[in-house]
This record gives sequence, structure tokens and C-alpha cells, in this order.
Amino acid sequence: MKFTIKNSLFTAIVSELHKICSNKSLLPILSGIKIEANDAGVVLTGGNSELFIEKKIPLQIKGETVVQVHEAGSVVVVSKHFMNLLKKLPDDIEISSDHMQAVLIKSGDIVTRLNGLAAVDYPKLPEIKILHSVEVEFSSLKDVIKQTIFAVSKSEAKPVLTGVKMEFDKNKLICTATDSHRLSRRAIQITFPEGSHSVIVPSKSLMELLHLKEPSFATVHISIANQMILFSIENTILYSILIEGNYPNTQSLIPTDFVTKVTTNTRALMAGIDRACVFSEEWKHNNVHLSLIDNSILKITTNSAGIGMIEEQQKTSKVDGIPAIDMTFDGRFFLEALKGIQEEQVTISFCGVMKPAVIEPENDASYVQLISPLRT
Amino acid sequence: MKFTIKNSLFTAIVSELHKICSNKSLLPILSGIKIEANDAGVVLTGGNSELFIEKKIPLQIKGETVVQVHEAGSVVVVSKHFMNLLKKLPDDIEISSDHMQAVLIKSGDIVTRLNGLAAVDYPKLPEIKILHSVEVEFSSLKDVIKQTIFAVSKSEAKPVLTGVKMEFDKNKLICTATDSHRLSRRAIQITFPEGSHSVIVPSKSLMELLHLKEPSFATVHISIANQMILFSIENTILYSILIEGNYPNTQSLIPTDFVTKVTTNTRALMAGIDRACVFSEEWKHNNVHLSLIDNSILKITTNSAGIGMIEEQQKTSKVDGIPAIDMTFDGRFFLEALKGIQEEQVTISFCGVMKPAVIEPENDASYVQLISPLRT
Repeated sequence: MKFTIKNSLFTAIVSELHKICSNKSLLPILSGIKIEANDAGVVLTGGNSELFIEKKIPLQIKGETVVQVHEAGSVVVVSKHFMNLLKKLPDDIEISSDHMQAVLIKSGDIVTRLNGLAAVDYPKLPEIKILHSVEVEFSSLKDVIKQTIFAVSKSEAKPVLTGVKMEFDKNKLICTATDSHRLSRRAIQITFPEGSHSVIVPSKSLMELLHLKEPSFATVHISIANQMILFSIENTILYSILIEGNYPNTQSLIPTDFVTKVTTNTRALMAGIDRACVFSEEWKHNNVHLSLIDNSILKITTNSAGIGMIEEQQKTSKVDGIPAIDMTFDGRFFLEALKGIQEEQVTISFCGVMKPAVIEPENDASYVQLISPLRT
Repeated sequence: MKFTIKNSLFTAIVSELHKICSNKSLLPILSGIKIEANDAGVVLTGGNSELFIEKKIPLQIKGETVVQVHEAGSVVVVSKHFMNLLKKLPDDIEISSDHMQAVLIKSGDIVTRLNGLAAVDYPKLPEIKILHSVEVEFSSLKDVIKQTIFAVSKSEAKPVLTGVKMEFDKNKLICTATDSHRLSRRAIQITFPEGSHSVIVPSKSLMELLHLKEPSFATVHISIANQMILFSIENTILYSILIEGNYPNTQSLIPTDFVTKVTTNTRALMAGIDRACVFSEEWKHNNVHLSLIDNSILKITTNSAGIGMIEEQQKTSKVDGIPAIDMTFDGRFFLEALKGIQEEQVTISFCGVMKPAVIEPENDASYVQLISPLRT
């Protein structure tokens, strides 16, 4: 194998893959990046036991030649040293490997030799039979993931809750995540003519999908196989395993009746809850208390005997139902819920003692969040 | 106590002081910042068992009123919560305290109460008798500290080596630091008419001095007392203890004869040594080997059996003496030494087998560094 490549481009891609290469795997080869050079350019693959990312670098990008392949071939290089070295080399580099897997990296008067591994030993991606296929804009997909992924369970006790449920149903993609204390559900329009299908995708894989440096306007081709999902965007393919198991029925959890409904400015409420979380390191649950004064002013209070007290008052836009609230929430959960809301106004429906509150953008039923109150 | 202050200014200073407040001290009050308001403005003090920093905020800065003192007084506030809270408040804040040390922070409709501590319990700085006093430009002082401080010993085994020796002698300030494997010594011109005096200043205190956000062109007034040194810059005073003990005689360590002397481009050599350090995490000493080819080309090599090899060749500017080198150094030490050199060309004098190499800017005897070679 032998090729010449623009280093800035190459290093950026190696860095992206390095982040997902596992250093602690039983398979040491997974700490490496597979490099393949062929007639069409260079293909880099990195991954761990849950996901793989494959990146194609074509010979030309926007008319400019970025790769010249002198000899086809493949090799695996330990990603850490490779990346650290590349960062410190000038822009034009030549990479070659011999039959002993010695990888030679040349750049001007700098010659580096790294011990490589045989590409044939790199795990092969399973042959997969695509069951369903969907197209969606990358920016929309990123939004719907960001608006739900924070609510997944951080504990491995119930593996299904560590993933995001993706439901493809009647021209809709509905993402749901819950850790049983809070829930986030968002729907977007897609074209999915093939009935309905739902999968649970590991949150780690979706996090890597969010980090992909592909343009936001690009189209993502989602392909679902039996135990795997593929996201294909421009020159990148992300392969992820799926989580097996039954996702709880979350529809029944969403209250349909409310006692008090408050509509207020999203950013102002976020800033207030954020301030109320200042002492949060100090005790386990970061209790933020909400109440109403004069039927229209929202009072946000936090109180720690040892440290002090924070209190602030915010004018609300509208109060429906009975104008009385006296509830305590985990401030961090509340903050994360509000972060997902892009609309100027947010509606919070309080549904009675110890029942979850419903947080929604005003006049938008496609995004629903639940937060359970805390016992005080 | 009661005053109104511009929060952006106030938070910047509280953050500076927060970094030096000790959370692990036997004196819990040292985790706090002392706030004093008087006719002249507000004074903030923070510190630990080795150094204190006092910051004065005058009523006006460049003609703009930044503080309004409504009632003189003082209180101590735990810095962590105070800083986290200030960051999240709008720009105009009112701070007050009562005789119970309850600190009230008001900003618009946001009211916060923190439990304070009594200012009388804050450690008083000792009455000190100034022995010597020197003036120097802040930028020059920062340079001479940066060019030596990295060479102090990281081990507490010999406390004197954890500090920088500052020698005020015949219109010169000479700073020296060594960990016994390497040494850095830099001299600058100052006005010091009072004979000679030398002190050992803890590197932690000098590090804080480097971090002070005062303008580079400001004049630093250095005052030396019996067991203390004071750096006074504009509205800031840094008080530091001195390290007691005898600093080793380092003059005798500097070789006067050389075998081979190489002059070369400083930045190119730095980049080369930096690349040679890529595998450095992998073994304890980061061996970088230097040799000469064709009497004029410097060859930098690093070799790790498990990972690979890096080799590069650099054209030197000049070689004096016997054109043969075959020595191994700790690459990290070499790199840190070169970082201090601002001149384009650097001269390295190799003085024979197992003798330290001398690194100097070309044609500048005021900055000398030694590095011991490694046995291989």
C-alpha cells in the first residue's frame, strides 16, 4: 500500500475515528484504525464492540486532488500514536506499508516507522439484510436526537432504557427516551411508506452520530437490519448494534388533565433554574421549589441550611386553571428539559400532587417532556 | 456593609482569588474571600498558607464609576458558591452584610442570601519590616520567571529546589531553578543600589504572579522582608512566604569548555524534538537521540521497540569544535528548555560523555540552561 494525502484532511478524520477506538477491548486490533487504499481513494474504519464508523476519502474533493494512490493495499495502525504523530507533521505526507505491516510515514526530511497490524485480522462487518430504509435531513435528525438523548438512563440496570427508542410510523419518526424519573418524546415528519417499525439505539452510538462532521443539510440514509442500524451520510457510514428487549409503553404515562398550566419565557426560566442550581454540588438532589404569587408571578426558590438561599420572581405570560403551585423538582432535570425547547414560550402543566409535570413548547404537540416531582 | 458594583469586573477578580483559596486547609476561613468596603472602594483578599493576594477596586476606573459604597464594613464569603452565583447574575449587583454575617446579594428580582463568616477571624497579614525594595517592569519579570520556573524540582525531597532563587545583585536580577537533572538561569537588568540579597520564592507563588491580570507595562514593586516577599502591581499585592535553607552553588556546575558546539534554528529544533516525543507516554524516560551526519546535519532519532521509530534530519547553521555527537536526552526536558528561548538561533554546547549540555540563545550570555544526558 502506498499513497500521498493532504495531512490536514487526513488528521481530522483520524481524530474523529480515534475517539471511538476502544483501548480496553479484548481485541487489541480494535485500538487501531484500518486504512485501505484503492482506485477510488482511501477508506478509514474505526470502532468498538458497539459501533463502527467508515470514512471514505475520494481522490478529489471539489475538483482539488487530495489523495494519490500509488499502490492499493490495507493495514491497521494503533490510532493513538498515529494521530499524535500526524498532528505534528507538515501538510503533505506519504503513507506506505509492506508485507511485514511496517507502516512508513514520510514528510519532507521526517521519516517515521510504526508497527502496524494485518488488515485481515480486523473484524469484518456482518453481511446484513436491510429490512427498512428511510431518508431524513441530518440537521432534523440531530435535533430530534439532541431533544431526547439526555433523558436516557445512565444506569445499566434496565438496558433498554439506556437507548433511544426510534419509531418509524406512518410518515413520522418518533424518538423517546426515559430513565423512569423523566421522559422526553419528539416526533418529526419523514417519508416511511412501509408500515411501522421500531428499534432501540444505544445512546453512545447516537452521541457519535451527533459528533459526525458532515454538513447539516446532507441527507442521512437510515437502513435497519435485524440487529443493526446503519446511518449513511455523504462519505461516512455509522454502523451500530441495536438494543434488544421490550421498551415500556410510555404513551400511558403522559397525563391528559392538568390542574395548573403556566406559560412563560423559556430562556428566562432556564436562567432562573440555572441560578437556583448554584449550590447543586452540595447535596444529592438539587431541589428547586416552584410556587405562584399573585396568580401570575412564578417564584423559584432553593434553600440549603448550610450555605444559603436563592430566591427569584419571574412574571409569567399566562396562567390557566387553578393558580396555585407548590412543587419541588430536580433542578438539573428541569434545566435539561428546557434546553431542548427552541420556542420562545414554554408551557408547564402541573397535574396534581406527586404527578409528573408536562413541559411543552407553546402550541407544539410534537415535543412532550415529563418530570416527576421530588418528595420533600 | 453595603455596596453596588459592576458584576463583570467583580466576578473577574473573585475568580482570580478563588483559584488560590484553599479548600483543604485546617482553617476553613481560608476557603473564603474577605470583602472590605470603605471610602476608597472595595478590597478583596484570598489566599492559602503560602500566599495571599489583595485586590483593590477603586470607586472609579478610567473616569467610570464602578463601585458605590453605601456603608463601610467587611465579611468573608466562601469563594466557590459566591463565584458560581456571581457568574449567573446580571451586571449590576448590590452586596450587603449584617452583624450576623448574612450576605445578601441582590440583582433585579433575584435575591440571594449566603451564610458568611466574620472578617475578624480572617488571618491577619504579619506586620513586616521591609529590608529591600526593587522596581521592575511586569513583562520583564514575567519573562525571567517563565524562563526558569519550569526547571524547579517537582519533588518535595529538597524543599529549596522547589523554589526559584532570586538574586538581586549589582543592578541585576538573576533567577535560577534546578531539579538537579537540569538547570535554568536568566539575568535581567534592574536598579538595585543596596548591595546584594538573595531569596528562594516558592514556585507556586510565582505561578500565581504569572497569572495576575495586570497590564504587562505596569511597574512591579518588589519588597523583601525577613520571611516574606511582596509583589505590588497597580491595585494588586501578592504576599508570599520565602523558602528557608541554602540554595546549592550552581555556578560551579556550568561547564566552561565544550567539545562540539551546534548552532541551529530554535523553532525547527523544537518542532523536531516535539515530534520525537510522540511516543513519550509509553515509557518513563523519553529518550531522544542526537547525532551529526556529514559534519552539519543534525539527526534526531527516537526508537521504541514496541511502537516504532521516528527519525528526522535538520540542516544546522554552524558546527564548531569536533563534529561528532552521540548523546541521548530526555526529550521533554529539552523541549521545555527550548521553549524559553525567544531568539531565532540557539547554541547547544556538548561537553563530553555524561557531562551536561549547555543550551543558550546565540550571542546572549544572560540566559543559560543545562541538561544532563541520559545513560543508554
